Amino acid sequence: MKKHNYSAGPCILPQEVFEKSAAAILDFNNSGLSILEISHRSKDFVAVMEEARALVLELLGLQGKGYQALFMHGGASLEFLMVPYNLMKQNGKAAYLDTGTWANNAIKEARFFGEPMVVASSKASNYTFIPKDFAIPVDDDYFHCTSNNTIFGTQMKSFPETAVPMVCDMSSDIFSRTIDFSKFGLIYAGAQKNMGPAGATLVVIKEELLGRTGREIPSMLDYQKHIAAESMYNTPSVFPIYASLLTLQWLKGQGGIAGIEKVNEQKAALLYAEIDRNPLFRGTAAVEDRSIMNATFLLNDESHAPLFDSLWKSAGISGLPGHRSVGGYRASMYNALPLESVELLVAVMKELETKI
Amino acid sequence: MKKHNYSAGPCILPQEVFEKSAAAILDFNNSGLSILEISHRSKDFVAVMEEARALVLELLGLQGKGYQALFMHGGASLEFLMVPYNLMKQNGKAAYLDTGTWANNAIKEARFFGEPMVVASSKASNYTFIPKDFAIPVDDDYFHCTSNNTIFGTQMKSFPETAVPMVCDMSSDIFSRTIDFSKFGLIYAGAQKNMGPAGATLVVIKEELLGRTGREIPSMLDYQKHIAAESMYNTPSVFPIYASLLTLQWLKGQGGIAGIEKVNEQKAALLYAEIDRNPLFRGTAAVEDRSIMNATFLLNDESHAPLFDSLWKSAGISGLPGHRSVGGYRASMYNALPLESVELLVAVMKELETKI
Repeated sequence: MKKHNYSAGPCILPQEVFEKSAAAILDFNNSGLSILEISHRSKDFVAVMEEARALVLELLGLQGKGYQALFMHGGASLEFLMVPYNLMKQNGKAAYLDTGTWANNAIKEARFFGEPMVVASSKASNYTFIPKDFAIPVDDDYFHCTSNNTIFGTQMKSFPETAVPMVCDMSSDIFSRTIDFSKFGLIYAGAQKNMGPAGATLVVIKEELLGRTGREIPSMLDYQKHIAAESMYNTPSVFPIYASLLTLQWLKGQGGIAGIEKVNEQKAALLYAEIDRNPLFRGTAAVEDRSIMNATFLLNDESHAPLFDSLWKSAGISGLPGHRSVGGYRASMYNALPLESVELLVAVMKELETKI
Repeated sequence: MKKHNYSAGPCILPQEVFEKSAAAILDFNNSGLSILEISHRSKDFVAVMEEARALVLELLGLQGKGYQALFMHGGASLEFLMVPYNLMKQNGKAAYLDTGTWANNAIKEARFFGEPMVVASSKASNYTFIPKDFAIPVDDDYFHCTSNNTIFGTQMKSFPETAVPMVCDMSSDIFSRTIDFSKFGLIYAGAQKNMGPAGATLVVIKEELLGRTGREIPSMLDYQKHIAAESMYNTPSVFPIYASLLTLQWLKGQGGIAGIEKVNEQKAALLYAEIDRNPLFRGTAAVEDRSIMNATFLLNDESHAPLFDSLWKSAGISGLPGHRSVGGYRASMYNALPLESVELLVAVMKELETKI
């Protein structure tokens, strides 16, 4: 039986992505070759890479606006390092918004290159909200933020107007909601939430921002080298990129970001309504900052946990336990999670109420 | 019809790896979940990672000898940078053997950290041989070499005795021949030849060599951080690592490295014998340095190319054209290429002779 997969990432992908990618492993495009054994320089894979890069820009509404999409290695964690390497001047400064564990890690790595200045932080409250009143110095090299905090269940609902380039780690909510993406100078995201399986990293960058720091950059960490090589500076992650293309094609078929956003809002509204209504549960994130991707919630009485856990497990739900920093539960409702899975979870929460 | 795949990498993998990995995409371990949607922290994937890391050390004969196996991101190209970052002292020196394009790239990146000293090079002859007489200064931080040069079809048949740690890029011949791997302080390899599909990178390192440079190292580039996190410092490339495990299990079933080495030697002997016998062809690499993985050869008369190309293509062979730096042909005979594919290629070369 197929599970209702609430995993925080890697996470559920569309069923057709599983089917098409499995078929391509046995025979890719009727070539007599597996997608796993073809050269990344083959005509067939070059076409995959080109379509994936173009489709990213199309879905984000960034075509013809001076942006490049790259499929990189190393996850968001390597971008924590590449962003300052490519954008921070020698002994420069950059503004960072500290909204959680990953924002913090980004700050730590930026210290190798200059001064990451924390303009605001919600650390003291265990990151239950998104700080909103802060100023970004106009002489900073960039402003860095994290659009969605997977662990803490918070999400930036709006982004500041900035005089400096805005850089955003969108790992856990890219492609989930309409945003004016042209406000950003650089967007990065590990693939393994809304874009595809683990093993690829998306970087979308406004090309004019590059080459301004005067730094010499090692080849693998240099966005300009990756752009010049059309995202094939070295052997790319062929299969994860192919599966990402299939996921992006599926998303386009759902009406793109605007189409999926409607479903995502429905799912989140349904679950948060139950968290608020059901006297057994409470949410952990500030209501106005609640993520539509990751809903974090606790049982008011922890002694009910064994019964609740047995109920959702026997309903075929998986991946619901919360991150150790927050405890309780986390329902990750990425693009590919169907509304029916949320209806089922809500039914199980109601069932718990009848059994207490 | 399944092709005879001579691609230089990504390359042919065992058929059972294609079948098992495709099945795991539809349902992994009867979990009701795809391998593409499970958490890397799930019990099932932690078991994959542990088995893969242990099996690497077992196959290389390095268990219990102070080595750690890591599955990293970024390919060998990122290791060009990580090796000096982790092993070169501040303003230190290291000895590099220049045997081809990739060795050269490794040298280039090491310049960010200190002085890579080229102890010998065959560049002047377009890398047709492996330099053998060179001295490695005893005060260098390490000696770096490339065991097999995919592009030029050369391979180191022996390795020097060194007073300093020996580092080797084994991307294109790891797991193909018996070597005393305990001579090496650090071995790295992109997965996409003998180990698995593109998207994972193997690093095998003698742990005692780490932490000696006095450098502060960014987290993602720090081998010690990856070891402490049991190769899950950040989300690993789940599917490429799983397919690598399947490939390593297949290799163990072939009698391990010693078992596959016999087949590899048979394949190489058969093809080189034909290259030497057939008056239409000649090899490009010095005979004593010929790679058992990548055989590079030319037509003596280039006007025969259209006929030869049509013959091998219609025989169901793919991936035979040589790299642009050498021209002609390159037959990559990685572990998973069956002897029958080489017999077929030899038959086609003989057929050309009858038609000229």
